[in-house]
Amino acid sequence: MKRILIDMDDVLADASGRFVEYCVNRLGRSVTKDLLKGPNWAAAVDIHADTVKSWVHEPGFFRGMTVMPDAQEVVKKLMEQYEVFIVSAAIEFPNSLKEKVEWLAEYFPFIDWRYIVLCGHKWMIDGDYLIDDHEKNLSTFRGTPILFDAPHNQTLEGYQRVQTWRDVERLLLPELLPNP
Amino acid sequence: MKRILIDMDDVLADASGRFVEYCVNRLGRSVTKDLLKGPNWAAAVDIHADTVKSWVHEPGFFRGMTVMPDAQEVVKKLMEQYEVFIVSAAIEFPNSLKEKVEWLAEYFPFIDWRYIVLCGHKWMIDGDYLIDDHEKNLSTFRGTPILFDAPHNQTLEGYQRVQTWRDVERLLLPELLPNP
Repeated sequence: MKRILIDMDDVLADASGRFVEYCVNRLGRSVTKDLLKGPNWAAAVDIHADTVKSWVHEPGFFRGMTVMPDAQEVVKKLMEQYEVFIVSAAIEFPNSLKEKVEWLAEYFPFIDWRYIVLCGHKWMIDGDYLIDDHEKNLSTFRGTPILFDAPHNQTLEGYQRVQTWRDVERLLLPELLPNP
Repeated sequence: MKRILIDMDDVLADASGRFVEYCVNRLGRSVTKDLLKGPNWAAAVDIHADTVKSWVHEPGFFRGMTVMPDAQEVVKKLMEQYEVFIVSAAIEFPNSLKEKVEWLAEYFPFIDWRYIVLCGHKWMIDGDYLIDDHEKNLSTFRGTPILFDAPHNQTLEGYQRVQTWRDVERLLLPELLPNP
């Protein structure tokens, strides 16, 4: 059985949407996801990096994220044909650790805790596919990297890019699609 | 550079000693580490499994563990010659996650957060050596497994066994030893 590693922020969980929500609700800004495009969105929307930093260290920031459209259904289908691990570089944010486990238990209750990995680097984890939004993780992966589209990775090239979880389904579960 | 994966409980942190401490201080029992020998020590020392379970879910249980003798010095030396990852099957205990990261920051401040892995299974992590006290982790590891002696694994055979961190040093850093 082939193994898929799946990232959390901006892949399973709408991290960018959470930043938009905080910009709008905390700062009263008129911000859309499009404005987050580019590697330094905080500067682009004129928010101090320290403000963003304080949000990600704040209790509840990770716990309150919205699940990405179709992620639950597609991950469940993937688990029938692949060994699926959730792999999140979360150790940097100690408050996020419990929140991430609780978030997965709420939205992905069919994922056993033994298949959750909270880490820093990802290069030492063996897998056939890695679905991730960050080049640093994809470029050091020894299997097939799959870039999940996110506002901050718009200019990144050289990777198979998926825009949505339906794209993941088409790519990794083509036999489930209706015949043309 | 070869990679070593190092477990936490009963390897870096004296988990068995913590159980002894709780037995003595919470229940007024006269317990020694020797009494913990065997696969079901709670029954052997006549403590209900639910009591033990409540301890490991209690805030502070993991944070208050003592560091194993010589672990700090030997891990620091290992890091000069190996890529060292700390790999703990901690996801089962969500309260332990932050505590484990804080514990490592206190006792092993020279380990960068990127080299900490909190997980369930360990078989998907690639490494040359795994130092662990549990057969389930050692038996599925594709590198060289090293069994760290603990009260519960006394009858386990078929693995290179180390009793102490000085044993680890002799095994993995033999060139640092004085000539006979």
